[in-house]
Amino acid sequence: MRKVKLFIATSLDGYIAQPNDDLSFLKLVEKEGEDYGYTAFNSTIDTVIIGRKTYDYVVKEIGISHYDNGERDVYVVTRTERPDSGRIKFYSGSLVELVAKLNNEKGKDIYCDGGAEVVNELLKNDLTDELTISIVPILVGNGTRLFKEGIPEQILEFISAKTFESGLTQLHYRRKRD
Amino acid sequence: MRKVKLFIATSLDGYIAQPNDDLSFLKLVEKEGEDYGYTAFNSTIDTVIIGRKTYDYVVKEIGISHYDNGERDVYVVTRTERPDSGRIKFYSGSLVELVAKLNNEKGKDIYCDGGAEVVNELLKNDLTDELTISIVPILVGNGTRLFKEGIPEQILEFISAKTFESGLTQLHYRRKRD
Repeated sequence: MRKVKLFIATSLDGYIAQPNDDLSFLKLVEKEGEDYGYTAFNSTIDTVIIGRKTYDYVVKEIGISHYDNGERDVYVVTRTERPDSGRIKFYSGSLVELVAKLNNEKGKDIYCDGGAEVVNELLKNDLTDELTISIVPILVGNGTRLFKEGIPEQILEFISAKTFESGLTQLHYRRKRD
Repeated sequence: MRKVKLFIATSLDGYIAQPNDDLSFLKLVEKEGEDYGYTAFNSTIDTVIIGRKTYDYVVKEIGISHYDNGERDVYVVTRTERPDSGRIKFYSGSLVELVAKLNNEKGKDIYCDGGAEVVNELLKNDLTDELTISIVPILVGNGTRLFKEGIPEQILEFISAKTFESGLTQLHYRRKRD
């Protein structure tokens, strides 16, 4: 069974961005040659689900090559349909149905790359199987919260906590399903 | 210099209680003989600051002996004055002034024992020197958030991450002041 995975960084007080999509607090932990396990994580997935706003932001900041590299199916969740472009598909249906469809196909795991809306839609429907949360040693006080209100109670199984020289701590959990 | 310290447990999504002050999710990590460093932490402090609602809750649930044990000065922060009782003092002035006064006195460190209102009033005024946050492996989705909005940005120094068999992870930070 394919798993749906989060891999995301937050401030200690639970924000993934400061107001106006300001991600500059991530610079606190940027270190040459340290990708905090991102490459290894990426080797476990072949499909990305991402919100449209986050997609547009990344394309603007990094370039479309970040997604359109021929290696992964990318589902951009949007309310406004756009034509697909190679393995980048714009998807305006139900996220629950998308995950069900992907789970019926063979493949590696599925990476939800944000933003908060898509993450929380997955969490609300208890569709997240693994969470890797990197805690940046800062309180930022305002912005976009990783966890919105209204997620149903979900007991997790702790897998590991990794600490890094920069002060980042990476917590890894699996959804406990009985 | 005395330090103001938090020592508090939260769900992974950042709640210290579910609605109606429901703390039952803490039972997930309750284990006989495991106090998650609470006794050791207590030996570093001799003064407690606590919100009135949390104080009343603990007195009702555990009994006044939890606070009135002759070993610590307890400041109960309240809007409604009450007569002091031994080393338990009801305080309705400014929290900033209280911390300044305590910092001018000799003693061990100062423990803020909650609730969220008092914790956030300290954080808003950048008066918290150490944070020990125990993360319980659960998402609860609703309730009282540990970190409210509006805390000014505060860079922290990571001290340690301790993991426990129950799946609890305890993160320890120091406020970085330049």
